[in-house]
Order: sequence, then C-alpha cells, then structure tokens
Amino acid sequence: MHPLIALVTLLTVLLLMAMMGLVGRARGRHGVKAPSTTGPEGFERTFRVQMNTQESALMFLPALWTAAAFSLPWLAACFGGVWLLARVAYAVTYLDPARSRAIPFVLASLALLALVVQGLWGVAWTLLLR
Amino acid sequence: MHPLIALVTLLTVLLLMAMMGLVGRARGRHGVKAPSTTGPEGFERTFRVQMNTQESALMFLPALWTAAAFSLPWLAACFGGVWLLARVAYAVTYLDPARSRAIPFVLASLALLALVVQGLWGVAWTLLLR
Amino acid sequence: MHPLIALVTLLTVLLLMAMMGLVGRARGRHGVKAPSTTGPEGFERTFRVQMNTQESALMFLPALWTAAAFSLPWLAACFGGVWLLARVAYAVTYLDPARSRAIPFVLASLALLALVVQGLWGVAWTLLLR
Repeated sequence: MHPLIALVTLLTVLLLMAMMGLVGRARGRHGVKAPSTTGPEGFERTFRVQMNTQESALMFLPALWTAAAFSLPWLAACFGGVWLLARVAYAVTYLDPARSRAIPFVLASLALLALVVQGLWGVAWTLLLR
Repeated sequence: MHPLIALVTLLTVLLLMAMMGLVGRARGRHGVKAPSTTGPEGFERTFRVQMNTQESALMFLPALWTAAAFSLPWLAACFGGVWLLARVAYAVTYLDPARSRAIPFVLASLALLALVVQGLWGVAWTLLLR
Repeated sequence: MHPLIALVTLLTVLLLMAMMGLVGRARGRHGVKAPSTTGPEGFERTFRVQMNTQESALMFLPALWTAAAFSLPWLAACFGGVWLLARVAYAVTYLDPARSRAIPFVLASLALLALVVQGLWGVAWTLLLR
C-alpha cells in the first residue's frame, strides 16, 4: 500500500470517528436516547450525515485501494484528498439547514467516480496485457 | 490484488452507487425529504434494499480479499460473481412486493459463506505450514 | 496480508454475520416485518447493536489493515483481538437493558484508536525515511 493511500485511509477513519462523536453529542443535546434514532430535526440531520458518510466511505475506500493498486497511486491519493475535503464540507453544510450541500455532494461524487474509472482503466489494462 | 478480484470489487462499488441512485429517485417520487428515512412502503423498501446491500458488502469485500490473498483468487472471483448476480436479483425482487426475495438472499449468503470458509481454509493452511 | 490479520478480518465478518442472524431472529420474535426497522424496544436494541457493529467495523478493518501494513502486524492483530472481544461483550451487554455497555464500548474505542495511532506512526515513519 502506498503511504499516501494509507494516509487518506486513516484520515477517512478519523472522519468517521468524528461523525460518531457528533452523533453522540447530538444525542445528549436533543435528549435522544439510544437505541432510538428519531427525534428533533437537529438530531436527525446529524444522524443522517453520519449514515451518508458511512455509505460513501464504503464505496470510497475499496475504489481508492483498487485504483491505487492498478494505476498511479499519487493520482488516486489526489482524488482521495478531494473526496475527504468535499465530505468535510458536506457534513458542515448538511448540519446547517440554511446552507446548500449540493456542491460538496457533487464534488465528492465526482472524486468517487474518478476513482472507479481509474480503477476500471487500470484493471482493463492489466487484463489485456497479460 | 488479482485483477479479477479488483473487477468484482469495482462492480460492487458500482452496485452500491446504483442503490444510492435508486434511493435518491425514490425520495423524489414519494416526496420523502432528507434527513427523513420513513414514509410510504415503496420508499422504505428501496431504502431497506440499499441498507441490506451495504450491510452485505461490508462482509463480502473483506471476505473476498482475504480468500483471494490466501487461496485460489479465481475461485474467490467466481464466488464473488455469484454474490454480485444474487445481490442484483435480491434488489429487483425486494423492490417488487409481489415477488419473493428468498432465493437470491440464500444464494448471496451461500456465496459469502463460501468465501469465509475459503479464507479460513487458506489462513489455517498458511499458519500450519509456517 | 499477515495470516493473523486475515484471521481477525474473517472473525469480524463472522461477528457481522452473527449480528445479522440476531436481527432476523428478533424480527420473528417481535413480529417486525421488513422493511420496517422500528418496533418494540427489544427489537430496536438488537437492530441498533447490528448498526453499531457495522459502523465500528467500517472504521476498524481499514485501520487494522493500514496499521499491519506499515508497522508490526502482530501488534495490530493484538489490538484487533481486543476490539473483537470488546465488540462481543458490547453486543451482549447492549441486548440486556439491565447491564451497562460502557466498559466494552470504551475498550473497543481504545483498541480502534490504538490501531489508528499505530497506522499514523507507521505511515509517518515511511514517508520520512523515503
């Protein structure tokens, strides 16, 4: 594993840990006790950000590792950096009902798509050259 | 990473992206605005398919990679292909309330179990031969 | 991949499969039909344990693999073993409303944090020595 890919991976884990912390704090603030996951919109918003980040990380990490293993790791790390920053911006804008989360969402989706395309390209190349 | 394993990995990511798209479309169709995740059965069904696919992918990918790393990668890729097809069939049958999703569910579960057994076998062999 | 890391990975997959089985049984016992995920507290508790285990595994496995790839794999496997045992204890205590799940939660979180720190340490070392 390329060290830059490892760095992006660990930063993604830290992002997921931060989301977990935010939901814990929102549980206390809005008085929503586990195992419940419904309540005031402020809590549901925080919970949904965590869910969306997990959902996205589940696609992102495998795509990141595959792209890096079969093509330029530094390029995959760049796309990974864009995804990370876009995901942080997505969380910040989602938590504020007054702001739009459209741009960070599109950016993160494009970075993910770029990794999938890079991975498919690398795999196709490897399969054809054998 | 074997290129066939990488291919199965990327197809799994594409499957997860398709599920995300279906939920987005169902949100629009049934008028269920984020962050809410409850609503008409048509929406809840789509949302649950996405959740179930994510839940299954979280077990599938680590098992796939481990089985391929410690035993025959082409066999792991075959089980992976069965899982992928069964998961697509599961989504199609879950979204239609009139059809049973039992057979795709069992097939996907067997493919996953086969990967875990293959992985355990490969790891046991490696640990014993050292 | 170190065989001990592969073993921890497969045991994590088995833990996730057991959680899936528990939720299936709780659906039958409490009469909560899919796609619904709300119902009596006994069901919601079981469902939340599964969700929490998935959420934690999504952070744990990438951290485990990165730590093992860039630093001592046997140490990462030890932290992994602690995480696994703590997660089993967490599930057992969460399912019983009379018991506290605080200690297993803290233990699992510390093991995860240890893996992230070990990974960052290994990556930093690799990047500096190049």
